[in-house]
Amino acid sequence: MNHISFIPRAEIFRVLESGAARHEKLRLIADICRINALSSIKLAGSGHIGSSLSSMDIFVFLYFEEMNLLRLGVTHPGRDVFYSSKGHDCPGQYAVMAAAGMIDDEKLQQLRRLGGLEGHPEVTTPGIEANTGSLGMGISKGKGIAIAKRLRGDGGRVIVLTGDGELQEGQIWESLQSSAHHGIDNLWAIVDANKVQTDRPVCDVLELKNLEAKVRDFGWTVARCDGHDFSALDAAFRLLKNASGPKMIIADTVKGKGVSFMETIDGGLYKWHSGAPDDDSYERAINEISGRLHAAFDTLGISKPVFRPANPAISTAYPVSTERVVAAYGEALLELGKRREDIVALNADLSADCGTRPFEAAFPGRFIECGISEQDMVSTAGGLALSGFLPIVHSFSVFLASRANEQIYANATENTKIIYVCNYAGVLPAGAGRSHQGVRDASLFGALPNCVIAEPCCADETKQLIEWCADEAKENCMIRLSIFSSPGPVKLPDDYRLTAGRGVMLRDGGDGVIFVYGPVMVFEAVKAAELLANKGFSLRVVNMPWLNRIDAGWLAEAVSGCRAVFALDNHSPHGGLGDSLLNALSETSLIQSRTFRKLAVDDYPVCGLPAEVLAHHHLDAEGIAASVAAATTEGLSPLLTSS
Amino acid sequence: MNHISFIPRAEIFRVLESGAARHEKLRLIADICRINALSSIKLAGSGHIGSSLSSMDIFVFLYFEEMNLLRLGVTHPGRDVFYSSKGHDCPGQYAVMAAAGMIDDEKLQQLRRLGGLEGHPEVTTPGIEANTGSLGMGISKGKGIAIAKRLRGDGGRVIVLTGDGELQEGQIWESLQSSAHHGIDNLWAIVDANKVQTDRPVCDVLELKNLEAKVRDFGWTVARCDGHDFSALDAAFRLLKNASGPKMIIADTVKGKGVSFMETIDGGLYKWHSGAPDDDSYERAINEISGRLHAAFDTLGISKPVFRPANPAISTAYPVSTERVVAAYGEALLELGKRREDIVALNADLSADCGTRPFEAAFPGRFIECGISEQDMVSTAGGLALSGFLPIVHSFSVFLASRANEQIYANATENTKIIYVCNYAGVLPAGAGRSHQGVRDASLFGALPNCVIAEPCCADETKQLIEWCADEAKENCMIRLSIFSSPGPVKLPDDYRLTAGRGVMLRDGGDGVIFVYGPVMVFEAVKAAELLANKGFSLRVVNMPWLNRIDAGWLAEAVSGCRAVFALDNHSPHGGLGDSLLNALSETSLIQSRTFRKLAVDDYPVCGLPAEVLAHHHLDAEGIAASVAAATTEGLSPLLTSS
Repeated sequence: MNHISFIPRAEIFRVLESGAARHEKLRLIADICRINALSSIKLAGSGHIGSSLSSMDIFVFLYFEEMNLLRLGVTHPGRDVFYSSKGHDCPGQYAVMAAAGMIDDEKLQQLRRLGGLEGHPEVTTPGIEANTGSLGMGISKGKGIAIAKRLRGDGGRVIVLTGDGELQEGQIWESLQSSAHHGIDNLWAIVDANKVQTDRPVCDVLELKNLEAKVRDFGWTVARCDGHDFSALDAAFRLLKNASGPKMIIADTVKGKGVSFMETIDGGLYKWHSGAPDDDSYERAINEISGRLHAAFDTLGISKPVFRPANPAISTAYPVSTERVVAAYGEALLELGKRREDIVALNADLSADCGTRPFEAAFPGRFIECGISEQDMVSTAGGLALSGFLPIVHSFSVFLASRANEQIYANATENTKIIYVCNYAGVLPAGAGRSHQGVRDASLFGALPNCVIAEPCCADETKQLIEWCADEAKENCMIRLSIFSSPGPVKLPDDYRLTAGRGVMLRDGGDGVIFVYGPVMVFEAVKAAELLANKGFSLRVVNMPWLNRIDAGWLAEAVSGCRAVFALDNHSPHGGLGDSLLNALSETSLIQSRTFRKLAVDDYPVCGLPAEVLAHHHLDAEGIAASVAAATTEGLSPLLTSS
Repeated sequence: MNHISFIPRAEIFRVLESGAARHEKLRLIADICRINALSSIKLAGSGHIGSSLSSMDIFVFLYFEEMNLLRLGVTHPGRDVFYSSKGHDCPGQYAVMAAAGMIDDEKLQQLRRLGGLEGHPEVTTPGIEANTGSLGMGISKGKGIAIAKRLRGDGGRVIVLTGDGELQEGQIWESLQSSAHHGIDNLWAIVDANKVQTDRPVCDVLELKNLEAKVRDFGWTVARCDGHDFSALDAAFRLLKNASGPKMIIADTVKGKGVSFMETIDGGLYKWHSGAPDDDSYERAINEISGRLHAAFDTLGISKPVFRPANPAISTAYPVSTERVVAAYGEALLELGKRREDIVALNADLSADCGTRPFEAAFPGRFIECGISEQDMVSTAGGLALSGFLPIVHSFSVFLASRANEQIYANATENTKIIYVCNYAGVLPAGAGRSHQGVRDASLFGALPNCVIAEPCCADETKQLIEWCADEAKENCMIRLSIFSSPGPVKLPDDYRLTAGRGVMLRDGGDGVIFVYGPVMVFEAVKAAELLANKGFSLRVVNMPWLNRIDAGWLAEAVSGCRAVFALDNHSPHGGLGDSLLNALSETSLIQSRTFRKLAVDDYPVCGLPAEVLAHHHLDAEGIAASVAAATTEGLSPLLTSS
């Protein structure tokens, strides 16, 4: 994409030194940052456009006008601490931080790259004050920072930016009540009220009603203003400055602000929440903004802003097929909905991502959009299950398995049946970072005695699995789903029938056997077996979709003849398939005279492009092959070397 | 306790057939139920008094006056569905259900007993509509039931009783907004607004401010009335009857209502929230209520109500020492607070239970009472940690590890250090049931790469552990603590120094080795070893406080000479010490030629008295000895029989 270009920081200096009025300067800086944010997203191949643009003027106002941060520096104890609780607007924030000299121009080209700028903010980037990306935690955390300032007697405020959809999270209301009760004077919140959440208007998903009144009832002092008007923002800060207790500015903004066609909602749907713009849209957007800039620079009598083309992209291609298991899941759910009237699907503002839109369109009465309120969603499902329905609950793995964990437990103690579909399971896609990569979900469901956990590796197995869960399972089910495009469709035997507790051999081998699941890891494991075959090592590959149910008789067959056994988890080494296999091998004594090694995501998952992230975790074919070879040749166990 | 007595259901019939006015009858029934609730708590040895009494008149009004339930029956699809979201008021509810004939008089004497009435409501008791006990889920679940009624076209309402302290849970506000948005007309909530949470006034912990206004702003229609006045309750129901959308009645009540000395707050503390009354208090309470009843019965010209003595208690004594590790923890925390000014303690309305009151009293500025808002508490701790403080976060294991799981994860990704103290870990005390027994916590923390998990077995080890966590640990720490009185203080070697990754042998043996932790399980394991010794089996007992850090060299010594290895978890078999040991044995090849068996809480923990619950789970000395004997003599593995 050699036409992607950025405006270097030098141009910010030219604006600041120009004869423009103060707020006109901020407007020009914001437009420069809009271009850089769009370019960084385009270069990254993903990122959140709408919210980066709606909060852009707020970022610029805070860094360049309102906060003491640039004056005191990012480590000064008296600095104003600022971060965005929603976090996905970080392309906008990074662009402004670059304009302010906190991030190098070069780094701006490394959005969502390994070692670059995280897909959601992390404190490893100097100037980023908190990790965010999962919604609703920001004000609570800000309260902690504000209390710390109070305890130390440090000056400065804590200013937390939130979304308006984000206010649907219950934790927000916990944090509002406690901040008010404890009279946290140095805590400010700004709501980027752009009126649109993932892809629908907030008022359609879960109406906020009279937000000002609600927040005032919770004990905060509130002002409301146009979030694209620097004078209005300034006035709001002045207005609240001397109020006691915590303070909130509701900043009315427009999602996609600054690019006309990104400001619109078509047919009830907003299409610029996340994802990189296509070439044409990118070009049109840049042209629109640069047109404004050119005119303004002309008026100021200064030469047009300089654009610098992006560095040539480093190729880190990763194979992509036309298959997405989430899409297959969506089709299967639709069919299931036609066949069974007791099925109710629930979602938490991620319907398109989770593949539930076809079901939603076909059965609006049996689809419940819960908004960004995972706990409420899960307990609602509990009530439906108590009433004889079969609820199927959807969200991203991190949000569902973790945020609503106690609600899932409470439901499970009632011995009803609920299906939980944990999307975004595993390390890929890795652009959004660890707030989004689900690698703990199996461990979080594992200690429920009555819940089976499974992940399918291809479209066919996905359909079989959801049917099994709905029609056959006697207990709760947790399905992990990759939302990533399958690197290459896995070829299962033609007569493959999913059978509880049993996997299926995809490739035979006698030197070792690896158990693996999911589209990405099965693909990599088969490739690893090919690499090893070239070195004379024969690796059996077994697709094992059941993470916590293992048929002992089948296992004995599956490992027979192999002295080395491997489990490959697209999950933490704790509580995944590896632990289940190890337990089964121990209980059956199959472990005797065999070595066992777990390959897994053995640290927090990193952010980056697919190939570089898999390589980092040693979970690409090369890494897997190397681990297998090392374990079996360098003496993981004396058994092998002595055999 | 042969003076404990109940008023049988026959007396309810006499009241109903008397010439009393309708609401006078309800008042008498409520007082009879007050006596029965107090007697069941006294007999159980624990239970929640204050809330049972404050909500008693509401229960009576609903079952005997407002609901169609007694007329239609508990399985009729058009019935009014009612349950208490707070759940701990179930002694009151059970008494009213017994008065209504839904529960046998005899069963009322089985509160908190195995196979009896659960310590918090469970659907296994006919007429109980939902499992509750962890706060804040009730309205969400009620919404699900109400939607199910709508989908099926069934009549009847869903009526959910909540506490007022409970409204601090964020999920409540999620459920309020979504119920209003979706216009759930058949959903009602009643707030038992008794103004007191665990042991302090709600307004002191986290003030609710103008609750009516808040709930109205969230889109509900609201009425407020005296919750002890049946006419007022009736009027509130009539007032809201035709309102569209969900409806809430805020019922102003008095905690402990009906027993004068249980209605008072002394020195800012309310002392009748939970726990059985002592003999004198029980007698005074019964005398006060029965005095009212006698007078009323006299006025009605009917003979005094009959009291029936409780059945003789079945002895299921369990040893109790004067040691409580929580108390030792509290002392150690206080000492730590004196020594380190960077320590901030946080709690979520369980300060007395978690032993943090001494710290709170000594360092009020460094103690943060967060109310019943675990998510807010954990993220607040995150902010403090980012600011260089060492936060120590306290709650019950189920609420902290599960409800706030994603917040814990988000904090951990920031690579700060926080200490999480999970109280009420393990199956004992078992009276409150599975909403309170923490047996999943290690699995819920296990997949955090930078968190050590440990549980001490005695006062001395508790003190060493919190000091190690504060002073030595480089990573996050999760401490499991039993709030149960230690059955017998564990005797550690005089020179015992807690060392990361290493346990300590308490008793030697050569036929097998068992790894165990915590005051209850170590006590039982040592007893089991004694039982086994009498049968000629020599069991080594190793106290292993580290659930997820195992020093490989130490492990080799610890198992040396033993062919059978056992792990004993006061936790689910998933993600506890057993899994860590199995992994370590596998990685070191120590598993070869050894058998390994996990003993653990292998289903949902049951409710009951300590001895019967341990026996049920085969975790008492006899059960442990039997498991060890069975595994080693009946051929868990061919290895042993062939050796």
